[in-house]
Amino acid sequence: MHVLIGGHKQAFRTVTYDPKRNQVRLIDQRLLPHTFQIHTCSDFRATALAIQNMTVRGAGAIGATAAYGFAQGIQSFESRDLDLFEAHVNHVFETLATARPTAVDPVNAMQRIQHALISGKTVTDKKVIARKEAERFAGENIAECQRIGAVGRNLIREGMRVLTHCNAGWLAFVDYGTATAPLYAAQADGVSFHVYCDETRPRCQGASLTAWELYQQGVSHEIIADNAAGHLMQRGEIDLVLVGSDRVPGRTGAVANKIGTYTKAVLARRHNIPFYVAIPHSTLDWEITDFRDIPIEERSPDEVLGAWGVDDQGKHNRVRIANPGSSARNPGFDVTPPELITGIITPDGIFEPGNLPRP
Amino acid sequence: MHVLIGGHKQAFRTVTYDPKRNQVRLIDQRLLPHTFQIHTCSDFRATALAIQNMTVRGAGAIGATAAYGFAQGIQSFESRDLDLFEAHVNHVFETLATARPTAVDPVNAMQRIQHALISGKTVTDKKVIARKEAERFAGENIAECQRIGAVGRNLIREGMRVLTHCNAGWLAFVDYGTATAPLYAAQADGVSFHVYCDETRPRCQGASLTAWELYQQGVSHEIIADNAAGHLMQRGEIDLVLVGSDRVPGRTGAVANKIGTYTKAVLARRHNIPFYVAIPHSTLDWEITDFRDIPIEERSPDEVLGAWGVDDQGKHNRVRIANPGSSARNPGFDVTPPELITGIITPDGIFEPGNLPRP
Repeated sequence: MHVLIGGHKQAFRTVTYDPKRNQVRLIDQRLLPHTFQIHTCSDFRATALAIQNMTVRGAGAIGATAAYGFAQGIQSFESRDLDLFEAHVNHVFETLATARPTAVDPVNAMQRIQHALISGKTVTDKKVIARKEAERFAGENIAECQRIGAVGRNLIREGMRVLTHCNAGWLAFVDYGTATAPLYAAQADGVSFHVYCDETRPRCQGASLTAWELYQQGVSHEIIADNAAGHLMQRGEIDLVLVGSDRVPGRTGAVANKIGTYTKAVLARRHNIPFYVAIPHSTLDWEITDFRDIPIEERSPDEVLGAWGVDDQGKHNRVRIANPGSSARNPGFDVTPPELITGIITPDGIFEPGNLPRP
Repeated sequence: MHVLIGGHKQAFRTVTYDPKRNQVRLIDQRLLPHTFQIHTCSDFRATALAIQNMTVRGAGAIGATAAYGFAQGIQSFESRDLDLFEAHVNHVFETLATARPTAVDPVNAMQRIQHALISGKTVTDKKVIARKEAERFAGENIAECQRIGAVGRNLIREGMRVLTHCNAGWLAFVDYGTATAPLYAAQADGVSFHVYCDETRPRCQGASLTAWELYQQGVSHEIIADNAAGHLMQRGEIDLVLVGSDRVPGRTGAVANKIGTYTKAVLARRHNIPFYVAIPHSTLDWEITDFRDIPIEERSPDEVLGAWGVDDQGKHNRVRIANPGSSARNPGFDVTPPELITGIITPDGIFEPGNLPRP
């Protein structure tokens, strides 16, 4: 997608790799939406640190960052000894895998590259394979999001008002995003529509990241408090709800996503508004048989007790909103049961939640 | 109610009047929950300013403040000339009435005192009447809230988990509050329960004011993001919803209240959780016949785009959360239709929304 710099559109991806300088480059998401800055990682340790400190976040984006970081670390090996090389590869793998220990995407990405390395006979061969596989991995992420866009594009019709929750946009992937992909595809076809972005407390990814994305692409949008969507639906001012997901247990058709998603699905059902979820293949989980078994992370109360942004002096700052003596509960995700979901948009088509195709 | 000062309970009301010094004293709500401070108004102009700049807020609280401010202004008249007195009274009335031009409670309160003044023959008589009537007005506000507490008390049972939205507590009235009154009455009877306070974006009155109140009274509570209530209901962790209201058109039984109330009512119905609304008599409106005619104030986008609190340096500060180029829609209220309301708690009893007694 592109970013407006000095009023001009410049193309960017969330994650890129420069093979000439052996650098991984990331949009620094810690500073968004207030400051746009490219963060350059000049070795694999710097790339691991960027995953760890959330310079880059979002399942697809950290998967691709780990893939590039793995290739980057492999390039820096300076001998032809295959035993030493293997030890080095394992060290790079561990460094990147432990940056976000609960995330599955970095490990999956690197395992694929590791598997491809077997076919290389020499260190030089293996270096070329690592670069190619990392680039292929990122390219597939982009292609999946593009297919989601093409599959979901016809849901977006002229004049529609679309509600989104949280950020499942291009910042969370390499490009295009999942929930945003049908919007960008419709925009490319000249369709006019308006997006209401739930601010998505407590971390406000809707107000900060999704609104930033839509602003850069020139998509008409307004931020609303999470409290306001019900009122707008009651007044007939929302035509479609479109969200992403963190995990879809395919056997159940339920959808785990950012806290508040379930509430929007309940409201949409009451007002007969279609509710769609867009996901790449990696989000599907065929292990879980009962959606009540999906673990719901309880996050730090501090996220609810305060807010983060830029103050009047232009300084990045955090304020405590809440009463100083009070604490908070902070479930990070909720689960929307299949009966509230109109359809799940995948790279292979739109499916009813109970009819997701098993690979 | 009381406030913890140095670990000790001290009794306070939101609004009081000191006849000896002719001063109106207010809890400064601009500084809560971070700083507790009594704001003293030494003449009626200072009292009007305190209403205007929201040192005091909440329908019941600003009504009582205007009543006291009116009596205060009348006391400061220094002649025995009845014509000059009448001109002075009108001037005081106008000064206080225009402090919050759209609020109805200050005008109603002062009109009652003005009517009572007729029976006084001399300026001295009228000064006494004004003081007594203002005190009676505030006393009635307290008594109404106490009756709401007694009427609603039995809804709160041992071990219950109660959800609140926004602040309809003692800070919004002279004492006790409306939605909070049954909680305080049950607490006084030794009932143990837990309150989840919706933070109530965008102004966060739940996280700041309701949490502050419950903390002072030692009521077990936690703040939650507005997004989290649906998830807690789904998990069976909420037993009752209790809110206040800004306007109840009695003929319709619908309830206008802070944005997000409707969403909680829809969720409560899905999970068969009782949903109660507590109101004093002044909230009833017998003019409106169709609840879609209730005007919904669209407030400044700035409330949604940022948050206000105290930063790490202990400084009151505001941060912009949202993407700098984006705007927001900010409806301040929503309307909950009668079919989603279990009962309306009034000083005269609990009524089904369609059966509210007309005075």
